Amino acid sequence: MAQPIDFYFDFSSPYGYLGAEKIEALAGKHGRDVAWHPILLGVVFKTTGGAPLPSIPLKGEYSLRDFVRTARLHGIEFKQPTPFPISTQAPARAFCWVHGQDAVLAKRFAQALYRAYFVDGLDISVADNTVSVAARLGIDSEALRAALNDAAIKDKLKAEVDAALARGVFGSPFVIVDGEPFWGVDRFEQIDHWLATGGW
Amino acid sequence: MAQPIDFYFDFSSPYGYLGAEKIEALAGKHGRDVAWHPILLGVVFKTTGGAPLPSIPLKGEYSLRDFVRTARLHGIEFKQPTPFPISTQAPARAFCWVHGQDAVLAKRFAQALYRAYFVDGLDISVADNTVSVAARLGIDSEALRAALNDAAIKDKLKAEVDAALARGVFGSPFVIVDGEPFWGVDRFEQIDHWLATGGW
Repeated sequence: MAQPIDFYFDFSSPYGYLGAEKIEALAGKHGRDVAWHPILLGVVFKTTGGAPLPSIPLKGEYSLRDFVRTARLHGIEFKQPTPFPISTQAPARAFCWVHGQDAVLAKRFAQALYRAYFVDGLDISVADNTVSVAARLGIDSEALRAALNDAAIKDKLKAEVDAALARGVFGSPFVIVDGEPFWGVDRFEQIDHWLATGGW
Repeated sequence: MAQPIDFYFDFSSPYGYLGAEKIEALAGKHGRDVAWHPILLGVVFKTTGGAPLPSIPLKGEYSLRDFVRTARLHGIEFKQPTPFPISTQAPARAFCWVHGQDAVLAKRFAQALYRAYFVDGLDISVADNTVSVAARLGIDSEALRAALNDAAIKDKLKAEVDAALARGVFGSPFVIVDGEPFWGVDRFEQIDHWLATGGW
């Protein structure tokens, strides 16, 4: 079987959320598995000089409109959360810990975290909220709470982000298919075509 | 007939070039006319804090790859020019002057300028090169050369850029359909859908 495709995402990224709702079906259509990689856009922006969308004049207002419009076009439920954006250490570390035990459950967990934030408006930057989303999936709250402060988990996430930067990842969602990089949920049709044809 | 759709573009923008190759057919399919508006991204970036893509770490390298890949997917000839990006006062002022006399010719002129830069590698920031592209379309070289230094034409372009910023335009291409803003050639399918349905 071909290599999995790599899916990079930040839990505070609306387009990352849309990507998370679509990537498994897209890859599955072509018989490919997906490796999910949380990143921290706050760290990435230190390399690229980027800034959160809402803080950018004109582009910020446009983005808030485009999130809603694009979600609706894809038929994905979306409600602009407040606060936005948020720091995503807690959900990203939680993902790393769950992933270490069960990669399939970790994907369901990531989607549940995204929906908690972008549908229910739950602030998942708060560790207790991340833990409560995990609990709904049967993940042990005590053990997860401990993991969130575990140096090994912090290091694992840091290594993930460093590895992503080393591969040229600068945004969310970001997908790498057999070495070919694609940025943005608006490149998913190109990814579909690339997976079907092997490139053009 | 419905209002024309507004198409904003910078002559140094690869995605603007791709948009310029596609916008007339897209609008025509829905019985709409297109009003072409040159902008100066250098001026826009002073408002938004933006920067030319090649200067941005990671994103710059990705973009150079994405220009070529996206052009090829659309079946549009594209060769990364050097220097890139360029300042676009000369072609934008030339467009404004031609547009004042013949709006249809101005569109053909814009497409010719884009192809000169992104296919033939001609540096259209140089006034002589912009004039030579115009001459091929039968536009008077002497008169155009004079217009490029005419304060009225400079003011007209400045007014175009100010008006664009006032409407929230922050990138290229940028399209406004009945008040609804769309940024990027990767939103052209949304524009198509919007024109067909009146929104969703």
